[in-house]
Amino acid sequence: MSTYEEITCPACGHKIKRYSNPIPTVDIIIEVKDGIVLILRKNPPHGWAIPGGFVDYGENLEQAARREAKEETGLDVELVCQLGTYSDPSRDPRHHTISTVFVASARGVPRGGDDALKAKAFSLDQIPRNLTFDHGKILRDYMEFKQGKRGACGPQG
Amino acid sequence: MSTYEEITCPACGHKIKRYSNPIPTVDIIIEVKDGIVLILRKNPPHGWAIPGGFVDYGENLEQAARREAKEETGLDVELVCQLGTYSDPSRDPRHHTISTVFVASARGVPRGGDDALKAKAFSLDQIPRNLTFDHGKILRDYMEFKQGKRGACGPQG
Repeated sequence: MSTYEEITCPACGHKIKRYSNPIPTVDIIIEVKDGIVLILRKNPPHGWAIPGGFVDYGENLEQAARREAKEETGLDVELVCQLGTYSDPSRDPRHHTISTVFVASARGVPRGGDDALKAKAFSLDQIPRNLTFDHGKILRDYMEFKQGKRGACGPQG
Repeated sequence: MSTYEEITCPACGHKIKRYSNPIPTVDIIIEVKDGIVLILRKNPPHGWAIPGGFVDYGENLEQAARREAKEETGLDVELVCQLGTYSDPSRDPRHHTISTVFVASARGVPRGGDDALKAKAFSLDQIPRNLTFDHGKILRDYMEFKQGKRGACGPQG
């Protein structure tokens, strides 16, 4: 994969080469009374996913996680820990993203908003198959963590 | 802080607004027989630092961590775990970086290379003060982890 991207100048059509970096994102596993909250994505790739999104320049990961959780589920979350940071270049078919995954808790009923058509709580034994991105792997890691098979969910950085 | 950056077209001088994201980096706390390895930076900000650098597009965090450790210290490291991901927008004076910090182990004598003037093993009670970036905070977190006061160093994402 190229480390450069090409931008076309809108005024003169000149091609400008720019150094390209992976893009930081957050995902938030929100624990509620009835399980965890997933969203049905409005935009491609379609399907059920863990709520999350891009980190803004000048915003830390924790702020981004609380903001994205609120936008996509309507819930005010309390962050518990970082589960890990996932960076496989093929995890997102659109571009190379690097996602820090948080575990969080919230009260109330989720409501889809922003990029989410729906937001819904699922019990851990009824998680839909074929989650988008690498979210199936992330939730398997989360379940191992909950079962005590995976040692760690780290403090926030 | 702005979420946009302005690029000037080298052909016609047109100003192009581009969405700007924080930049993903890695830092590697390398455990050797005599302590941990720090580097003396060749470029500003000067001073002692944990070895690390930018993640390339198409490269995962683990590859970046092994590559940067090798370039800056000459050591082939074995990654142990992710300590956490640090994202304070002021952690790097040059731009907003988000660093995933690994703990790793290696054998042999470190040798400075690439961006490192020197690479040297320090015992944990002789770490220099005034490390660059937020590396003082990261090493305090690392020491709490080693003393069992900080619960977790997570599996690799």
